[in-house]
Amino acid sequence: MKVQGYAAQQAKSPLGPFSFERREPGDHDILIDIEYCGICHTDIHQVGDEWGGSIFPMVPGHEITGIVSKTGLKVTRYKTGDRVGVGCFVDSCRKCDACNKNLEQYCTNGMVTTYNGTGKDGSITQGGYSNKIVVDENYVLRIPESIPLDSAAPLLCAGITLYSPLMHWKAGPGKKVAIIGLGGIGHMGVKIAHALGAEVTVLSHSLKKQEDGKKLGADYFYTTSDPATFEKLKGHFDLIINTVSADIDWNQYLELLSLDGSMVVVGIPEKQTSVGAFPLVAGRRSLAGSLIGGIKETQEMLDFCGKNNIASEIELIPIQKVNEAYKRILASDVRYRFVIDIKSLV
Amino acid sequence: MKVQGYAAQQAKSPLGPFSFERREPGDHDILIDIEYCGICHTDIHQVGDEWGGSIFPMVPGHEITGIVSKTGLKVTRYKTGDRVGVGCFVDSCRKCDACNKNLEQYCTNGMVTTYNGTGKDGSITQGGYSNKIVVDENYVLRIPESIPLDSAAPLLCAGITLYSPLMHWKAGPGKKVAIIGLGGIGHMGVKIAHALGAEVTVLSHSLKKQEDGKKLGADYFYTTSDPATFEKLKGHFDLIINTVSADIDWNQYLELLSLDGSMVVVGIPEKQTSVGAFPLVAGRRSLAGSLIGGIKETQEMLDFCGKNNIASEIELIPIQKVNEAYKRILASDVRYRFVIDIKSLV
Repeated sequence: MKVQGYAAQQAKSPLGPFSFERREPGDHDILIDIEYCGICHTDIHQVGDEWGGSIFPMVPGHEITGIVSKTGLKVTRYKTGDRVGVGCFVDSCRKCDACNKNLEQYCTNGMVTTYNGTGKDGSITQGGYSNKIVVDENYVLRIPESIPLDSAAPLLCAGITLYSPLMHWKAGPGKKVAIIGLGGIGHMGVKIAHALGAEVTVLSHSLKKQEDGKKLGADYFYTTSDPATFEKLKGHFDLIINTVSADIDWNQYLELLSLDGSMVVVGIPEKQTSVGAFPLVAGRRSLAGSLIGGIKETQEMLDFCGKNNIASEIELIPIQKVNEAYKRILASDVRYRFVIDIKSLV
Repeated sequence: MKVQGYAAQQAKSPLGPFSFERREPGDHDILIDIEYCGICHTDIHQVGDEWGGSIFPMVPGHEITGIVSKTGLKVTRYKTGDRVGVGCFVDSCRKCDACNKNLEQYCTNGMVTTYNGTGKDGSITQGGYSNKIVVDENYVLRIPESIPLDSAAPLLCAGITLYSPLMHWKAGPGKKVAIIGLGGIGHMGVKIAHALGAEVTVLSHSLKKQEDGKKLGADYFYTTSDPATFEKLKGHFDLIINTVSADIDWNQYLELLSLDGSMVVVGIPEKQTSVGAFPLVAGRRSLAGSLIGGIKETQEMLDFCGKNNIASEIELIPIQKVNEAYKRILASDVRYRFVIDIKSLV
């Protein structure tokens, strides 16, 4: 079927109108009329071919919400009219250890990413900067009624990216959690960790967003440009989530962990980072990584957000402003996530 | 009281005979006639003042075994004639969170190290290259009857350094454990992990010790100088313990971890190591550190070793050969631990 979208024709080129084909829904597929799609920093990385291997033309977008408009013959989980979402992947091998543990994001045979990937039928996947998408029902999420579809969109990547490590490392009452960076994903961490009952501290390069941070649920807000912050908070946190891909000195932050504390990296800096063994050994601390979340956990996250009135803080834009939005993201000029109104595509 | 020992008079100087004073046993103290003391690589680091802050004259030694020869008035746990040991520390604050959790090795106020430390009374501590030591009964361990005192000595540091992370990260049946480096501490890891029922692999820079490694309990033995090792073992291990302080590429080893696997560092390389976020993020892997063990766990380890007939493989030397032994350790010329026969001191 014919689909309208916005694509980059080659690496680093601006995005523009693009029409392309998607498969007709198969027995287990759902056709979704896309209403909104969040803009993730990953989109910019991949359009820029910064990680290599990008496939063009590329229709980015993996924070997708919309309405089911058609279901395959054997679909049981969704019906026409349902409010649904699609995140960072649309398939996985369904056989490996990770898939069997509902951790499809770590699929040994490689998950099929929502765009810039290759489906099991060999076709190139295209993302949510478009008006329709066809996805196997097992990789579709249900959006709770209480969350508007526009501010729900970023939950599909930014939300789960923080929810999953917060749950895995047991953020909750009595736990002291720090979020490094109050951006698109960091602000979701503050909201979710607060709702989980943890003590939440934002560590930000400046105090500019302090007021915002506290409104979002932070108990404390410190600037990392003041060395006193690192003195004062030494040994304080059970869990630090680093949402910043910029080069920062991880050792300084490891020292802020308490005994048995963990620092979890969810962004991938371009360069490797120097780590000393001492801060790890001296407190049985861990430096770990975490990647989005599985389908089951993503649904749990959406339900949790529905119950706790959590959604992303967004700036809604027409798709014609996507190139401008990319520039503003690179200048950290958004509070906190751009979401494309797909109606603007027509 | 007057004690005979071997000391370094200044940084990097050879060790020689030295007589010094220890306190008379107080109410809670035990006087131990030292029979054996293991030589730990840490002794060489500290005699060389490689970590800074070394105090001279220094009597090294924190792998001590001997016989109780006198007990303070209020001592309840030990009596004259008991076979006992002393490890890396002889006191701690007993009040902090770590001490309350029986993790005195992470004492927030600083444990009192067995030598090159400062006791609560302000005196400088001196270690086990000597014929007597006075230690608070709460920091003394009981050596099971089934372990000879000479080969038991290295358990007090090398043994617990491996036992603690193996237990904390749950090595056991069904778990795949790799030990990087088959030296003084690595060989203890092989024995203990094997006794715990884990599948044990040694990753060594050459195959020279392969036969030994398998005798000690390794199921598999690979050389890390062959790049094929890293291809073959990708994603294989639940737990890797790095006993090597030399600069090696940690990223290569992180890739050998399975989903949710941990690599635990127990040595401290001189320089910081470059770590990429990708191997961490891609499998929710952790890079962690671990430092010896608390008193309770050290006793557990000794009892476990007693039940499983585990002790260190040692080369017993008279104290007059200690300087030569240091040179041989630096040349990796010992299988696997030097232990000083303290009788030679007289």
